[in-house]
Amino acid sequence: MTRTLSGIAASNGIALAKAFRLETPDLTVEKKAIDDADQEVLRFEAALAKASAELETIKERTAAQISDKEAAIFGAHLLVLSDPELVGPITEKIKSDTVNAEFALKETSDMFIAMFEAMDSDYMKERAADIRDVTKRVTAHLLGVTIQNPSLIEEEVIILAEDLTPSDTVQLNPEFVKGFITDIGGRTSHSAILARTLEIPAVVGAKKVMETIENGTFIIVDGLKGVVIIDPDAAVIAEYEEKKAAYDRQKAEWAKLKNEATVTADGHPVELGANIGTPKDATGAVDNGAEAIGLYRTEFLYMGRDAFPTEEEQVEAYSAVLKAMDGKPTVVRTLDIGGDKELTYLDLPKELNPFLGLRAIRLCLEMPDMFRTQLRALLRASVHGNLKIMFPMIATLEEFRAAKALVMEEKEKLAAESIAVSDSIEIGIMVEIPSTAVMADTFAKEVDFFSIGTNDLIQYTMAADRMNENVSYLYQPYNPAILRMVKMVIDASHKEGKWTGMCGEMAGDEIAIPILLGLGLDEFSMSASSILKAREQISKLSKAEMASHTERILALATAEEVETYVKEIM
Amino acid sequence: MTRTLSGIAASNGIALAKAFRLETPDLTVEKKAIDDADQEVLRFEAALAKASAELETIKERTAAQISDKEAAIFGAHLLVLSDPELVGPITEKIKSDTVNAEFALKETSDMFIAMFEAMDSDYMKERAADIRDVTKRVTAHLLGVTIQNPSLIEEEVIILAEDLTPSDTVQLNPEFVKGFITDIGGRTSHSAILARTLEIPAVVGAKKVMETIENGTFIIVDGLKGVVIIDPDAAVIAEYEEKKAAYDRQKAEWAKLKNEATVTADGHPVELGANIGTPKDATGAVDNGAEAIGLYRTEFLYMGRDAFPTEEEQVEAYSAVLKAMDGKPTVVRTLDIGGDKELTYLDLPKELNPFLGLRAIRLCLEMPDMFRTQLRALLRASVHGNLKIMFPMIATLEEFRAAKALVMEEKEKLAAESIAVSDSIEIGIMVEIPSTAVMADTFAKEVDFFSIGTNDLIQYTMAADRMNENVSYLYQPYNPAILRMVKMVIDASHKEGKWTGMCGEMAGDEIAIPILLGLGLDEFSMSASSILKAREQISKLSKAEMASHTERILALATAEEVETYVKEIM
Repeated sequence: MTRTLSGIAASNGIALAKAFRLETPDLTVEKKAIDDADQEVLRFEAALAKASAELETIKERTAAQISDKEAAIFGAHLLVLSDPELVGPITEKIKSDTVNAEFALKETSDMFIAMFEAMDSDYMKERAADIRDVTKRVTAHLLGVTIQNPSLIEEEVIILAEDLTPSDTVQLNPEFVKGFITDIGGRTSHSAILARTLEIPAVVGAKKVMETIENGTFIIVDGLKGVVIIDPDAAVIAEYEEKKAAYDRQKAEWAKLKNEATVTADGHPVELGANIGTPKDATGAVDNGAEAIGLYRTEFLYMGRDAFPTEEEQVEAYSAVLKAMDGKPTVVRTLDIGGDKELTYLDLPKELNPFLGLRAIRLCLEMPDMFRTQLRALLRASVHGNLKIMFPMIATLEEFRAAKALVMEEKEKLAAESIAVSDSIEIGIMVEIPSTAVMADTFAKEVDFFSIGTNDLIQYTMAADRMNENVSYLYQPYNPAILRMVKMVIDASHKEGKWTGMCGEMAGDEIAIPILLGLGLDEFSMSASSILKAREQISKLSKAEMASHTERILALATAEEVETYVKEIM
Repeated sequence: MTRTLSGIAASNGIALAKAFRLETPDLTVEKKAIDDADQEVLRFEAALAKASAELETIKERTAAQISDKEAAIFGAHLLVLSDPELVGPITEKIKSDTVNAEFALKETSDMFIAMFEAMDSDYMKERAADIRDVTKRVTAHLLGVTIQNPSLIEEEVIILAEDLTPSDTVQLNPEFVKGFITDIGGRTSHSAILARTLEIPAVVGAKKVMETIENGTFIIVDGLKGVVIIDPDAAVIAEYEEKKAAYDRQKAEWAKLKNEATVTADGHPVELGANIGTPKDATGAVDNGAEAIGLYRTEFLYMGRDAFPTEEEQVEAYSAVLKAMDGKPTVVRTLDIGGDKELTYLDLPKELNPFLGLRAIRLCLEMPDMFRTQLRALLRASVHGNLKIMFPMIATLEEFRAAKALVMEEKEKLAAESIAVSDSIEIGIMVEIPSTAVMADTFAKEVDFFSIGTNDLIQYTMAADRMNENVSYLYQPYNPAILRMVKMVIDASHKEGKWTGMCGEMAGDEIAIPILLGLGLDEFSMSASSILKAREQISKLSKAEMASHTERILALATAEEVETYVKEIM
């Protein structure tokens, strides 16, 4: 029987496929006495063999679908599996203590992990992480539960999950993954952003997905409306096949604009940039007609690993993006962790309100060595393109000055080492904290550019956690308070001959775009998949006409009035 | 040997006394088999007798020092102790199961608590809470640990605690409690506010107090400087006795201003109000020269109990405040719970960022029945004085309209019931969310007044949790962004012929006062103990001169520049 679930439309498009539930099995191990130790050793060796065969397959697939570098991780895991230094003590423990293999494995690997982690060596710390991963895999085989390997998916599926983390998604193959549905999250959660980057339809915050939908059920995800249809009948399938075809035709129309400039109907050019998370995304951005990278989120480089990326690794990543952009403006945001983004290898204090805590630039200024490494890497990569460095979560001028001073110090050091650095790097800030919007006139004298981060600016201006469904009615991009702040920032930058971009979700929103054009926004940065649609919309709008509405819009009292007004004038 | 600890100066004054550590003992109970059940029953009965004697004393002290109503709680506890329905099954269980008394007590009382809580009756739910409290007390006697009863303190002490909750402090007798020192918290935490209300010196956020100071150690708390001195020698004691005497002389000077009006040197009157938490505080406010109550925090009426206060209880409390204020303006803030303020009997969702979550007016609009009860009580009490109703955490005009509509509906219902309600109740809002400050012009058309809540306004404007020490450098009352927002609010209100007050900590700050006078703030509401000092300061300041500095101050770039500027002109 056809049923539907509603959620938040997080990435446009429609997909029809079987459900694939992505779950983490329970790997709790109990100590058990066993009768036949030889039999238990055989059971252990069988589990090793299964894990080994599985890793071989994953390694090959990852190499073919993603890259040799990602595949190398699984090569390291295979080496651990065949290491007699690890395997020997486990079989001995099974025999001497007559305990179950799971427990012997856990005790032994815990000891090795503790030993390696205690060493002051990044190499050894990575080995500890390898052992941890391999132990999980072998334990799963011993317990008879399945660790899912999304890279092994070989048929078209729609992924269902409680939530998706960046590490979950690195293995997803867009050839087979046709859509996402998650129980939690909002339009600005990582899984939503990822879905837009991969250009696959997604519905997030659907709440009862994992409770309701069995593995293998045929479902439809409508990322345009935020609807999930379970077990559709033939009529519904036909209806959605048609909707999907219509959307695909629309996309084909937009694709024709790929190499066009972005110009309003009355001849004003604006810049359309993409928000990206990895160097690979830069290609997708260019393919989608991006004229710039308006936001490169470097924190993904720090995630899903066991230690900080080295300076060399960072130089490589930043250079790759700059080269892919081939001289186009590329705004790289320095590390924004803390808040909801944690690093496993960085033990941050547990905070009562992490969104109001030690995150982003605050943390970087507390950990200058870590920050300097990133800044050096950025400076070294700068010769490969048009780099602009952007600091996140700036609340005071002192913070900007302190961060900029570190850039200047590292630049001097590199000069002393005769390492080439570009001479035209702009240094700007995210405007995502109310104090900075209100003080934009004083900041504009010292920064090279602003980029308004609306996701956080809205959250702080309305004092409402954007991930919290209880207060989601307060996540109001059209609230006149937000628009007035945006105006303060744009006006302040223009007065000092600087430019203002926007890299929050709002920059790609079809109600917001006309207002932002009227306010004089210089650069709109959004999910790559939204760029062509925005280009088409902007080409039909007159900037002068939109500007003539600004005063009336900013005098409106509520977000609802703003939305109604814009819909009327369109 | 004399040692010192530093913390945050939270309440002015100096005290010298013995340390009293306020701690919660570990009441974990384990099941143990016993040999002699009769002996164990005797041990149980001895614990009952001790608990009973203790409760009698507490009940008498509470009646004498606080009120008969608070004492009645302990009367109910005594009834539980002598209830054969509870005590019978416990002794039987000790005998039949040959288990220790602690375990038999726990099992039996857990069963009764579960049973009573499951019933749909407030009376039964209260009984469950009584049993829980009594079980703790008897368990403590069985385990040989001490549950502290602050009401039993009979000598001068300085209280040391990890932190103090409102329920901890209800029993504190100001006759003996000479000061507070806590490990956590800031100037705006509850313990700090309470200390200022009780007018006793306090240092909070001193971090290592519980780790460092033994019970009974002689200590000095300097609430003026935020310093704690442990084991002072004779010279240090003499020095601080002199400082204390100097401070007391200063206070005596201020006391002369008690019945004076608050007028600037150039003849402009302003209103000085007090922030209070309980009806009792109103008397202290008047004694300290308050011309108004600028903030009555009604949430304390909801705390430290097992069910919502009834409409009658609320009418009584609000009427008491209004009568005590004898026609002076009395701003009552409607319930502000959620965030860091929880009610034991209200199961709120656990939130990742509670300060950005479902709290204050957001929660009240979600729970209209609870809210209507408070509004009815306020309306009924209004005939006893000059009531002004204020909604907290208003972020949008829709929220204000919805809340005001409920007031109007309840007013009509009361009229239909022929219950008298004042006709001149003003309805206003807290301005503590950036969106509301920025939109003050549109709000000013609909509200009767604004009161700027700087504690939260600073927190949200700077995106920094005011309770989080890692980002305490961002709690900047003098940040020009805050001052600009304050100006927006004051100007907007005056343009519509309305008034603006301030009820955050900033209103009583000696650097902020000259700036706020210059900005045209109409009402300053602060801890009662700060009023006379503020009156003296204001009497020496020229409003016109301060106003002449406003433009220059608002053009400064940082909080530090503002502070330096104000110190120079003073």
